[in-house]
Amino acid sequence: MCHVPQRAHRGATAGSPPNGRSAVLSSTMRAAQLAEDFPVVTAYSDALAAARLLAEHRLPGIVVTDESGKPFAVLPASQVVRFIVPKYVQEDPSLAGVLSESMADRAADKLGGKKVRDVLPDHLANVPWAHADDTIIEVAAVMARLRSPLIAVVKDNKLVGVITASRLLDAALNT
Amino acid sequence: MCHVPQRAHRGATAGSPPNGRSAVLSSTMRAAQLAEDFPVVTAYSDALAAARLLAEHRLPGIVVTDESGKPFAVLPASQVVRFIVPKYVQEDPSLAGVLSESMADRAADKLGGKKVRDVLPDHLANVPWAHADDTIIEVAAVMARLRSPLIAVVKDNKLVGVITASRLLDAALNT
Repeated sequence: MCHVPQRAHRGATAGSPPNGRSAVLSSTMRAAQLAEDFPVVTAYSDALAAARLLAEHRLPGIVVTDESGKPFAVLPASQVVRFIVPKYVQEDPSLAGVLSESMADRAADKLGGKKVRDVLPDHLANVPWAHADDTIIEVAAVMARLRSPLIAVVKDNKLVGVITASRLLDAALNT
Repeated sequence: MCHVPQRAHRGATAGSPPNGRSAVLSSTMRAAQLAEDFPVVTAYSDALAAARLLAEHRLPGIVVTDESGKPFAVLPASQVVRFIVPKYVQEDPSLAGVLSESMADRAADKLGGKKVRDVLPDHLANVPWAHADDTIIEVAAVMARLRSPLIAVVKDNKLVGVITASRLLDAALNT
């Protein structure tokens, strides 16, 4: 299952109030209004394929669903990066400089042999999703607590989209 | 100081090898080749203005420099979200549903009164930056260890750009 992201591309300062004090947060806005189409993967997808989706769409993270299509985790791009670095280099980054090219190649191959569930950070598994009619403040509260770059939005047990942290800020500060 | 980000927009599967096993990681690629222009703020910038940059450019995070223009921290969008949510809602997100609109407005105003240094997460202050001639593996190792959505790249004590996690994955998996 893969949805191509629809991103809003905005001008550098378009829509900004002239000063910070005039910004208001619309607590009546609902999660469904903020949700965007984003690629999703399942826990049993190939981890390297998930990394490619993150890379090609320049995503901060990706929603992971179970077999029924229900979101249950978030996989941040910064965590996938971890899996292309050999363990001994993670522990001592200074060793990266002396890594030979063939060793680096093997590191990338390692990711290909893994499933998404193998590379999920513990604190972002079983992440609560937002309901379509949750308020923007409810979504923000969950996102902030989990330090997640995105939150899935569900309606009638079906994934309706994803809200990124920057999308949420955009909605909160430009209403 | 503000640089508008230059993003590469790629097709859904363009450039992907047909299977995961063929991916190689180019350890000879250097940080300067990966660095992109991104907005930066200083520790003394208004936090609300920083939030607007994140929102308008849909960034996963923003580099924070000291007064000399040297990067010293990374501010992730998911952490800025925390500052538009009242503290008691952060602790119990179920309270967000009963938050009145005027209370939410005051939450946004609170962010406007803060400096960037006030909203920096501890673990992303004093973040090491990458040198322009660091290898992609060195950058990945630092990014993974810090769980940072991006890393600043410095040459001759000057910020030359920023590498996001998804940009790094893109370079690592599509060479």
